[in-house]
Amino acid sequence: MENQRHVRVGCDFEYDAGIDTAAVFQVEPYGGGPASVVRYEWESTPEIPRRAYVDLYGNSCQRLVLPAGSSTLRYDALVTVPDATEEVDLDVRETPAADLPDDALLYTLPSRYCLPDVLADEAWELFSGVEPGYRRVKAICDHVHGSLKFAYGSSTPLTTAADVHAAGYGVCRDFTHLAITFCRALSIPARYVFGYLPEIDVEPAAEPMDFAAWFEAYLDGTWWTFDPRNNEARKGRVLIGRGRDALDVAMVTTFGGPVLKRMEVRAEEVS
Amino acid sequence: MENQRHVRVGCDFEYDAGIDTAAVFQVEPYGGGPASVVRYEWESTPEIPRRAYVDLYGNSCQRLVLPAGSSTLRYDALVTVPDATEEVDLDVRETPAADLPDDALLYTLPSRYCLPDVLADEAWELFSGVEPGYRRVKAICDHVHGSLKFAYGSSTPLTTAADVHAAGYGVCRDFTHLAITFCRALSIPARYVFGYLPEIDVEPAAEPMDFAAWFEAYLDGTWWTFDPRNNEARKGRVLIGRGRDALDVAMVTTFGGPVLKRMEVRAEEVS
Amino acid sequence: MENQRHVRVGCDFEYDAGIDTAAVFQVEPYGGGPASVVRYEWESTPEIPRRAYVDLYGNSCQRLVLPAGSSTLRYDALVTVPDATEEVDLDVRETPAADLPDDALLYTLPSRYCLPDVLADEAWELFSGVEPGYRRVKAICDHVHGSLKFAYGSSTPLTTAADVHAAGYGVCRDFTHLAITFCRALSIPARYVFGYLPEIDVEPAAEPMDFAAWFEAYLDGTWWTFDPRNNEARKGRVLIGRGRDALDVAMVTTFGGPVLKRMEVRAEEVS
Amino acid sequence: MENQRHVRVGCDFEYDAGIDTAAVFQVEPYGGGPASVVRYEWESTPEIPRRAYVDLYGNSCQRLVLPAGSSTLRYDALVTVPDATEEVDLDVRETPAADLPDDALLYTLPSRYCLPDVLADEAWELFSGVEPGYRRVKAICDHVHGSLKFAYGSSTPLTTAADVHAAGYGVCRDFTHLAITFCRALSIPARYVFGYLPEIDVEPAAEPMDFAAWFEAYLDGTWWTFDPRNNEARKGRVLIGRGRDALDVAMVTTFGGPVLKRMEVRAEEVS
Repeated sequence: MENQRHVRVGCDFEYDAGIDTAAVFQVEPYGGGPASVVRYEWESTPEIPRRAYVDLYGNSCQRLVLPAGSSTLRYDALVTVPDATEEVDLDVRETPAADLPDDALLYTLPSRYCLPDVLADEAWELFSGVEPGYRRVKAICDHVHGSLKFAYGSSTPLTTAADVHAAGYGVCRDFTHLAITFCRALSIPARYVFGYLPEIDVEPAAEPMDFAAWFEAYLDGTWWTFDPRNNEARKGRVLIGRGRDALDVAMVTTFGGPVLKRMEVRAEEVS
Repeated sequence: MENQRHVRVGCDFEYDAGIDTAAVFQVEPYGGGPASVVRYEWESTPEIPRRAYVDLYGNSCQRLVLPAGSSTLRYDALVTVPDATEEVDLDVRETPAADLPDDALLYTLPSRYCLPDVLADEAWELFSGVEPGYRRVKAICDHVHGSLKFAYGSSTPLTTAADVHAAGYGVCRDFTHLAITFCRALSIPARYVFGYLPEIDVEPAAEPMDFAAWFEAYLDGTWWTFDPRNNEARKGRVLIGRGRDALDVAMVTTFGGPVLKRMEVRAEEVS
Repeated sequence: MENQRHVRVGCDFEYDAGIDTAAVFQVEPYGGGPASVVRYEWESTPEIPRRAYVDLYGNSCQRLVLPAGSSTLRYDALVTVPDATEEVDLDVRETPAADLPDDALLYTLPSRYCLPDVLADEAWELFSGVEPGYRRVKAICDHVHGSLKFAYGSSTPLTTAADVHAAGYGVCRDFTHLAITFCRALSIPARYVFGYLPEIDVEPAAEPMDFAAWFEAYLDGTWWTFDPRNNEARKGRVLIGRGRDALDVAMVTTFGGPVLKRMEVRAEEVS
Repeated sequence: MENQRHVRVGCDFEYDAGIDTAAVFQVEPYGGGPASVVRYEWESTPEIPRRAYVDLYGNSCQRLVLPAGSSTLRYDALVTVPDATEEVDLDVRETPAADLPDDALLYTLPSRYCLPDVLADEAWELFSGVEPGYRRVKAICDHVHGSLKFAYGSSTPLTTAADVHAAGYGVCRDFTHLAITFCRALSIPARYVFGYLPEIDVEPAAEPMDFAAWFEAYLDGTWWTFDPRNNEARKGRVLIGRGRDALDVAMVTTFGGPVLKRMEVRAEEVS
């Protein structure tokens, strides 16, 4: 049996709400991923009933009502992940559009933040000369990684891939949106992934831990993982959800305007 | 048994493609709608094999490859529709966000063309004072119908609801995107609908027949039909597909750049 | 906010397998139910990787491989449940077959253990005279509860509702299969439910705790809970899965013949 | 582009009903199959409104109400099918249970008519010695084809695979149920298929045309077609539906007891 590593993941939220406010949280590891939940715990003050559901994309969501006043929520889990670096295969070929599986077609279309229709010319100019397949998606990631500058607070909930492309700044979701956009402009299905990214067998980053965003591209029968922000193969990604872009896998969606006073994310190996 | 009317619907396409080009067509009436297909026929020159599939939203799609050179496709159907004007009920109430069904939540979020995040202030300014429920959605439709000017060719595949709002011009899909945007900004689930709209018991329009766009809003347990372009209750809508916006229910999606040389749409009552 | 009760649920399994044996477990509370998981934990000796998936019916399943030799698995969870007895409404009416929702139709058909085709005559003889609706389903439960004798070990994995009806003995799954069979014979959709049933505000049963089986019948727009084994409204059912009969929601399915040496189920209120 | 053959398929029903009777019909070709519908037509006397829906397995169903008195329904379609005999590959290997895709697991379980739990010993005795993979499924088909005698009217809606195995007689659905049963007993996923089977490039059968039943077994990543009734590779199968057994893909399900006075099935090549 393959070796496993143990990772503790979780997050804390502190809200202040004027009135009772309906909300949806996506913070639990995706069931079907390689990560396996050994133990988890929800805590809230005051005690807040939750109800789970599975959305259109198969992601696990939690519905609840944030009560008027102050409230805190905490999700904490211990998961096992395979002790293996994710696969890379430069020789994998592109699937012609006519042969794509039906359910991959959705991921070739524009979405709220990923605008292959707007950036089609840039995509063709930059990448039409690169060999189709894994190498081309890698070239896209190299380009995004090299040309965008990481800057906290440089983007807002309205920032599209086209905005990021123009500005040259972004956070991991923006890197991901831009790379997805280029893939889709070339008819390569690309879907947004959101999760916990522990630092296993890598140099620790300088920044505080946060949720991470990366993407999967469909090539020759398989969805391959790409991460234009870090641009290196990793161990131990703990996937939370997949969708067309960050909108489909928002960590929290609120139906009203509660104030998020504090948020903390955890993803660290434990022995 | 309720009375039925008979409607002939269909469309013709003529393409010129440089190379074989994968494509998806959405032109068949939606199975679950009130319209019932009595007879249909596909014709193509040259003969083009098709394969059907059902997308994430439950819509019927046809995959095919447009061959290099000239080709024509023709879809023709005879359907029955109920001889009844669609229901209107001004007193229907809004469903609080906390009580919305899980699968309606998706339709409160922004999408490629519907931008409640961008137009939130306008939505609140204009409609927060209106009584919640059917009356409020009707107020939105009245406003969009009254403030936008219908103009062929005034929008492009990149035009969002925010663009339309700024420009004051649009076609039926733009009217629909803007009304959907206002609904979602108020946490009312609204989904885009695309179909054939015959002229039954109404004054014939001056414009040539085209595919039509309208929307459905979720109020008190039911999805209600609204049509900000025509802004009147109609008989005989023949729904083709539903989705978040026009992207999800594109009549034709091509993976490459064939030239559409001619398109014709039919939707007329037959006796 | 409504009051909540806290319940600890879980189960232990001890297996002895000749060879590595693929298996599927269904023991986690169903996400969409009224019960909400506060905390859970999986333990296994040796450590056994698991992978979750959601089946055709929306149930959460865990896939794993029982290793050759001895192994133990333990699932333990703390859940909250509403402090409310499940609803009963004698006046609810039956939905005519023509008006049933599409996805309820499946639950009017025969299945492996529920044989309305075989017991149609009995069903009509016994219940066609009873007022259609909730009262009729209650009459079915009263009859099954009154006429079957509960007896551990009286049924096998091959025992159908028809066998149980003939024998007059059964365990809770057999009571449930027989009542479902009678419902379906009368075109009332009925689906099998499997879960943890804590003893909250009721007399403790003499028998050791076990997984419990009950069913839901579709009447006038809602699935109503019925329990022909206990035949009383309860608090705190913790649903694990739903399906056509016990086959669809088997606690454990193994692809091979490991020996189950010990099993224990927990479902008890904690303060 | 590969060559296509043209096939006319369809069916006629004549009913006599005491009262209005809800019914579900499954007679339209499955959208996702290799057959492509060029033209179709529904006719009924009196005119009967229909509404389509897609069931849990992805099959297209038609709901309608048979009116009190006499009624006739006729479905007629022209389809194209590939001019190619279905693939056979004796060397395809079995997929170990641990590696089966999640959605194939359902097709290893017993169902109403397919009873691997009852016939497990026979299955192991007969086929455990045969090389796993395509050859083993073929051995099952050869055995069923050779040991069962085809006899119209030899089975009823209550007849299971175990009954057929004991009796030695059956129609095509019984041949199929028995072969599926043996496959499942060996943990090979097997699903029931129902459709039109034209006689293309084969000797015409003596019997009148009827709906046909065959099955698909999952081996090494693909669902392979097997037909224990005819036991030969064919051209032009026009699939209507797939499911666990004949129950899931019943041509007609009625909620009440109308009399079927006449039924006719068509499946013939046209030039």
